[in-house]
Amino acid sequence: MMMGVFISMVCRPGRACRWCAAGYTNICPAVQFIGLPPLQGALQQYIVHPAHLLEPLPDGVSDEAGVILEPLAVALHAVNLIRVRPGQSIVILGTGVLGTCVLAVLALYRGIRVVCVDLMPERLERAREMGADVTIQPHPDADEEAARQIRSAAGGEGADIVFECAGALQTMWNMCEVAAPGAHLAVIGIPEEDKIIFSSGTSRRKGLTLRLIRRSVRTLRPCIELAGRGLIAPEKMVTHAFRAAEVGRAFELVDAYADGVLKALVDMEQW
Amino acid sequence: MMMGVFISMVCRPGRACRWCAAGYTNICPAVQFIGLPPLQGALQQYIVHPAHLLEPLPDGVSDEAGVILEPLAVALHAVNLIRVRPGQSIVILGTGVLGTCVLAVLALYRGIRVVCVDLMPERLERAREMGADVTIQPHPDADEEAARQIRSAAGGEGADIVFECAGALQTMWNMCEVAAPGAHLAVIGIPEEDKIIFSSGTSRRKGLTLRLIRRSVRTLRPCIELAGRGLIAPEKMVTHAFRAAEVGRAFELVDAYADGVLKALVDMEQW
Amino acid sequence: MMMGVFISMVCRPGRACRWCAAGYTNICPAVQFIGLPPLQGALQQYIVHPAHLLEPLPDGVSDEAGVILEPLAVALHAVNLIRVRPGQSIVILGTGVLGTCVLAVLALYRGIRVVCVDLMPERLERAREMGADVTIQPHPDADEEAARQIRSAAGGEGADIVFECAGALQTMWNMCEVAAPGAHLAVIGIPEEDKIIFSSGTSRRKGLTLRLIRRSVRTLRPCIELAGRGLIAPEKMVTHAFRAAEVGRAFELVDAYADGVLKALVDMEQW
Amino acid sequence: MMMGVFISMVCRPGRACRWCAAGYTNICPAVQFIGLPPLQGALQQYIVHPAHLLEPLPDGVSDEAGVILEPLAVALHAVNLIRVRPGQSIVILGTGVLGTCVLAVLALYRGIRVVCVDLMPERLERAREMGADVTIQPHPDADEEAARQIRSAAGGEGADIVFECAGALQTMWNMCEVAAPGAHLAVIGIPEEDKIIFSSGTSRRKGLTLRLIRRSVRTLRPCIELAGRGLIAPEKMVTHAFRAAEVGRAFELVDAYADGVLKALVDMEQW
Repeated sequence: MMMGVFISMVCRPGRACRWCAAGYTNICPAVQFIGLPPLQGALQQYIVHPAHLLEPLPDGVSDEAGVILEPLAVALHAVNLIRVRPGQSIVILGTGVLGTCVLAVLALYRGIRVVCVDLMPERLERAREMGADVTIQPHPDADEEAARQIRSAAGGEGADIVFECAGALQTMWNMCEVAAPGAHLAVIGIPEEDKIIFSSGTSRRKGLTLRLIRRSVRTLRPCIELAGRGLIAPEKMVTHAFRAAEVGRAFELVDAYADGVLKALVDMEQW
Repeated sequence: MMMGVFISMVCRPGRACRWCAAGYTNICPAVQFIGLPPLQGALQQYIVHPAHLLEPLPDGVSDEAGVILEPLAVALHAVNLIRVRPGQSIVILGTGVLGTCVLAVLALYRGIRVVCVDLMPERLERAREMGADVTIQPHPDADEEAARQIRSAAGGEGADIVFECAGALQTMWNMCEVAAPGAHLAVIGIPEEDKIIFSSGTSRRKGLTLRLIRRSVRTLRPCIELAGRGLIAPEKMVTHAFRAAEVGRAFELVDAYADGVLKALVDMEQW
Repeated sequence: MMMGVFISMVCRPGRACRWCAAGYTNICPAVQFIGLPPLQGALQQYIVHPAHLLEPLPDGVSDEAGVILEPLAVALHAVNLIRVRPGQSIVILGTGVLGTCVLAVLALYRGIRVVCVDLMPERLERAREMGADVTIQPHPDADEEAARQIRSAAGGEGADIVFECAGALQTMWNMCEVAAPGAHLAVIGIPEEDKIIFSSGTSRRKGLTLRLIRRSVRTLRPCIELAGRGLIAPEKMVTHAFRAAEVGRAFELVDAYADGVLKALVDMEQW
Repeated sequence: MMMGVFISMVCRPGRACRWCAAGYTNICPAVQFIGLPPLQGALQQYIVHPAHLLEPLPDGVSDEAGVILEPLAVALHAVNLIRVRPGQSIVILGTGVLGTCVLAVLALYRGIRVVCVDLMPERLERAREMGADVTIQPHPDADEEAARQIRSAAGGEGADIVFECAGALQTMWNMCEVAAPGAHLAVIGIPEEDKIIFSSGTSRRKGLTLRLIRRSVRTLRPCIELAGRGLIAPEKMVTHAFRAAEVGRAFELVDAYADGVLKALVDMEQW
C-alpha cells in the first residue's frame, strides 16, 4: 500500500536559497528529487524518506491514482501559471500522460474549447471521452497542413492558449504556428535532443508569451483533494500494471508505445 | 523639418478586430506599417499620411531624435512588459540601436545592475557612457565561456531579466544560459534565418518566461515626453547623416557595420 | 423582438482618450451609457442607436436572456479580473441579479467551493439550484457571528476570493472579515449612501487586494456565446414580466423586493 | 553598535502554513514580531534573538540607517507590488517616516512625476530635497479643494499611482479622489480609529485597485544593499537621538510632532 507522494523540500530549512524563500522550490538550483541523480529512484521495496516530505494519500485515493499525482500536479501548476478564461480556445499538443493530465485539469472548466492533437488514435479516443471538444490526428509529414487544421479548429486566428506536451521538435515548432496573436504557451514536453526551435517571425509577429514549466509547486495537495472528491480520476491513466519481477517488460512496453499504453505501474510489493 | 512620428492605427475604426479593440494594435493581424509591403517606406520627399496617425514632435525634440523614437518606443514597450525592480540584475545582449534604446530606458532606473554584451568595442564604450555597470566583449567562438562570464557579471546565478537585442543564433541560445532561475526574457532581436533555438533543459530547469516583443503600443508619446524633458537623448544614437542622393552609401555603411555606425539618417530634404 | 444589446463606444473614434485607446472603455471619463443622464433610458418603444454599437442577439438567445446579458457581462468581467483556480474557496455576498450572475459564471468551474450569502431564503434556494456549495442566511443583527460562520464555511481561514454584490454597508464591512490572508476581493455592489467602510486592521493584516468593478469591457460577446451554447441560462433570472402600461407596478415590485422578484422585465412592445 | 535587523520567520519550519510556504511570511496569521505582544519590544539593553533571524548590517551602513531599514523595506515592498513605469504620475499622501521611505525608493526612478502632500511645511521641504517634483500643503479644512489641487498637480485626470502613508480618515477618503481612472493604490498608513472610508462612486467609476500593505517580505536585504551602495540614505530620516534615560522625552517629542521630528532614535547603549 502506498503511503504518500514525495514532495520536494526547501533546500536549506532556516536559511533557504532565494527561490525557496520566495516559495518557488521547483526552480531551486539545489533541488533534490527522487530518481534524479544522485538520488535513487523508487524501484525498491523500501525507501527511507523524511515523513514531513511525504504528502499522505487519504482513504479515497487509490495507489493507481497515487502514481499519477505527480504529473497531475505539474499539469495544475501549468494551468495555474496561464490564466484560463471562459470563451477561450485551448490546444493541447500531445496526449501522453502529461497532456492527458492537462486535459483532466481543463475538464474542470466549462465554456472553453479544447482541441487535442496526437498521432495515436487510441489516445485521441481517450481525450474525447475525457471531454476534448475536438481531436486531430495530423499527418506526420504534413506540418503546415496540420498547423492550418489545428488553427482552424481552435477558431480561425488560432488558440488563445497552447500546452506543448509532446516534446517533439515538430510540436515545439508548431506550438507557435497554432497560437493566436497575444497567446500564452506552456511548454511542458521534454524533447530527446536538448533543443527547442520555433519561428522567430511567427512568434514575434504574434507577440507570444512562453512559459517553460518546471515540475510543480504547491499543487500536489489540491490535486489530492480533487482526486479525493472524484473531480479528477487519475487512476484511469494507468493502463498497465506489472509485478516487481516484470520491470523489464514494463520498460519495453512503454518504450515501444505498445498496446495502447499510457502509464504503466510497477508494484514493488508484488514479486 | 520633421513633423511627427508615424503611429499605427486601429485596423477598422468603429469595428476593430479583437486585438485592436483590446488596445493591442501592435499584434493586429491586419496591421499596416510604413515600409512594410504593400506600404512604401519613407525614402521619399513627400508622403501623404492621415494627420491623426502622426504623433507631432514638440519644439525641444530634434529631427535626429525623431528617427530614433520608433525603436525607443519598442524598447520602452519591452521594459514595461517586464517588471523591473530595485536590486535586480539585467543583461542586454547586443547594443545596436534596439539594445542601446533598452539601455537608455533602463538608465532611468537606479539600484539595478545592467550588464551589456557586444562584439564591437565602440558600442560597449557607448554603453558605458550611457550607464552600463559592466560591459563584456565575448570571444565569438567561446560560447560557453561567454555565458559563464556574463552569468558571473550578473551576480552568480545569472540575470533576473535578459533583453535579447542581437538577433543572432548564438545570442538567442545564450539568453537562456545567462538567465537566473525564474528570470523573464524579452526577445527583441530579429535573426536573419527565421529561427529561435535554445536549450530545452536549461530553459525548463530555470522555469523561464519568454516574451516575444512586437513593435510597440502606447509608448511613443511617453518616449517623446522623456526626450522633450531631456531624460533620454535619442539623438546621440544617430552617428551618421546623409543627403538624399547619398542613400546608397548610407545602406552600404550600415550593412558593413563600418565607421562605428549605430544609426544612419538620410535627410530627404537635402539633395 | 429584441435586436441586440447596447455596447458602449470608444469616446472619440480616431483620437480616443488614453483609457479607450488602451481598451478600457469602461473607465473612460467621458463614457456615455443608455439610461445615464444626459442619455435617456430604454423605456421607449423605439430607440435610434448606431448599428455598430449594438451587439446582435443570435437566434438561440431569447429576449429574456437579452435583458440579463449586461449584468452578466459585468460578472464575467469581475471574474476575469480575479484569477480563479481549482481548489479555491469563494464567497458571494448578496445574490440579487449581480450576485446571481457571478454565481452563473462560477458555475462554469468545477473544483472550487462557492459559498453564497443572502438575507432572503428564496434567493439562496435559487443559488443552491444553480450550484452553490453552501448557502448562509445570516441573522441581520449579528454581524460578527455571520462573519465567523461564513469564514468557517469557506474553510477556516476565510475565502480566497470574495465578490461583494450586495452593496450594503454591512456587507462592505464584512467582505474583509470573511476573506483569507492574501485574498482578492471584487467590489461590485452599489451602496445607497456613497460610502465604503471596512476595518483598516483586518484588511491590512491580511494584505488584501480590492478591485472596484466598473461595468464591463469585451465580455458581452463571450456571454452571448455562453448563453447561445446553453452553458449559462440568463433567462432564468427574469422572474417577472410586465406590459408597457404596467411599468409603475414593475418598479413598485422591485422596490419592495416583493414576490421573490429577481429581475422584472418591461416589454415595450406589449401595451 | 547594532548587529542586525530583525526579520520575521517562517511560522513552523519544515511544515509551514500555506502563506509561509508560498513565500508570504508577512501575512502569516501566526506571525511573531518584536514589539507585537506577546513579544516584547527592543527598549532593552540586551535581547536574545536567534541568529538566523537577524539580517546583519554591513560596515557601510550606520546604526542610524539601521533603525530606518524596517520601514524602508515596507516601502520597497509596496513599490514592488505596484508596477511603476516611466511617464507615470504618483502621489504620496503623508511624508512621515513611511511616506518619506516611499519617496526614497521612488527617487531611484527618473521619468516619473512625484507629488508629495503633507500638512507640515518642514516635511515638504525635506521631500523637495529628496526629489519630489511637486509638494502641496493643503488647507486642512478644504478637502475637495485639496483633492482638486493634487489631481491637477498629478496631471489633470489624477495620479496613476497613489501611496496613502498618512493614515488619516481624510487622506483615506482623498486617496480615491486624487487617483486617475484605472489607478493602483497602496494603502500603507494606519489610522487611529480602525476604519477606512472612501467614496463608492468615485472608486467604482474609476475602476480602482487597492492593495493593503502588510509589513514587508524579502525586501530587507535589497534595502540594506541600496543603503550600502549609497543609493538610499536612510540615516537622513533620523532627526533626533536620545540616551536610554531620556526615553520618556523621546516619546513626548514624537507624540507632539515637535521640533520637526521625523524619526527619533533611543540609543540603549548610552545611559
